[in-house]
Amino acid sequence: MAKEKNYVSEAVMRRMPKYYRYLTDMEKSGIERISSRELSQRMGLTASQIRQDFNCFGGFGQQGYGYNVSELRLEIQKILGLTNTYNVIIAGAGNLGQALANYTGFEKDGFHVKCLFDINPRLIGMSIRGIPIYDIDEMEDYISNNKVDIAAICTPKEKAREAAERVIKSGVRGIWNFAAVDIAAPHHVIVENVHLSDSLYTLSFRMSDE
Amino acid sequence: MAKEKNYVSEAVMRRMPKYYRYLTDMEKSGIERISSRELSQRMGLTASQIRQDFNCFGGFGQQGYGYNVSELRLEIQKILGLTNTYNVIIAGAGNLGQALANYTGFEKDGFHVKCLFDINPRLIGMSIRGIPIYDIDEMEDYISNNKVDIAAICTPKEKAREAAERVIKSGVRGIWNFAAVDIAAPHHVIVENVHLSDSLYTLSFRMSDE
Repeated sequence: MAKEKNYVSEAVMRRMPKYYRYLTDMEKSGIERISSRELSQRMGLTASQIRQDFNCFGGFGQQGYGYNVSELRLEIQKILGLTNTYNVIIAGAGNLGQALANYTGFEKDGFHVKCLFDINPRLIGMSIRGIPIYDIDEMEDYISNNKVDIAAICTPKEKAREAAERVIKSGVRGIWNFAAVDIAAPHHVIVENVHLSDSLYTLSFRMSDE
Repeated sequence: MAKEKNYVSEAVMRRMPKYYRYLTDMEKSGIERISSRELSQRMGLTASQIRQDFNCFGGFGQQGYGYNVSELRLEIQKILGLTNTYNVIIAGAGNLGQALANYTGFEKDGFHVKCLFDINPRLIGMSIRGIPIYDIDEMEDYISNNKVDIAAICTPKEKAREAAERVIKSGVRGIWNFAAVDIAAPHHVIVENVHLSDSLYTLSFRMSDE
């Protein structure tokens, strides 16, 4: 059976970023080598689970040696597409859009926020960490004239679908959607949702069971 | 087999907020009744999947009638613990903490942000939408003297574990963690993570496969 990413389960796909995060922290701490047992303990997974996950990508590590942290991190970095760089625009320069623009951590992973777009005349012309806020009516032109890989949708819920349609029509291939609506997109466009209210509901759901 | 929430799968648990979101939107649009077929089309699920999900909670709806939107919404609201109210504090009043405090949508669902805590003297004493920012050293006292159900952890990554330990020791039962670390917590404390970088990595992972 082909081990292409298309065939990787949602659960495995959701764990890969976590491996990357742990391995990055370990590398920073100067850890060079880790056994699958120790990795599993740190991550709260079983060693067999980890082996199964890695087998989806051909498997890493050597029997009796464990994993070389830097090498494994690099492999997973490649798998996650993090050896590429991505130009990002943010539709909606409210609190959340500004928070994303202000966060410098994404740049280390190759995600470069180029500009924000908003409808509010008081925000247009301002900048955040040197990142300009433009009129949202200029968004399509900007995308047509610049390489834009990802659009973060941080508009109010009511405007999110329209904003997404506009960036998709202009050629953006990745949507990072923060609005509490589901975005319809053609097959070649990837939509990743951060539904904060869904997350909060999951929390209350689990708390109300205690 | 008992149909307690403890036995509900992660996948079902993750879909319940989505049902609630769709039903809330439908109720607002004046839709009173919906067939399981139409609900499944709107949500991009199969009708059989929906029936299975609802069966985890005893099942809703009537053969041949479908679902009464308001009644179903109320049932799911109860299941999600959203007929209760929750007092929320935010540890970390940076961009993200401020964005959460500024968002009024959570209040409609019964989540009331009472105050923020920060280490930065320039922020302490300020307020956001009337919600005060206090010195983080007062956090334990505040929790001891007030009903606090949920703490949102919006501190830098390096401070997140300590902040979580402090609120847990003071009696908070729910952690909404935005820092890119996993929080260890005793069994009675529920931790819900919003790992933004993991979400971005998932996006790049899926995009790099195209």
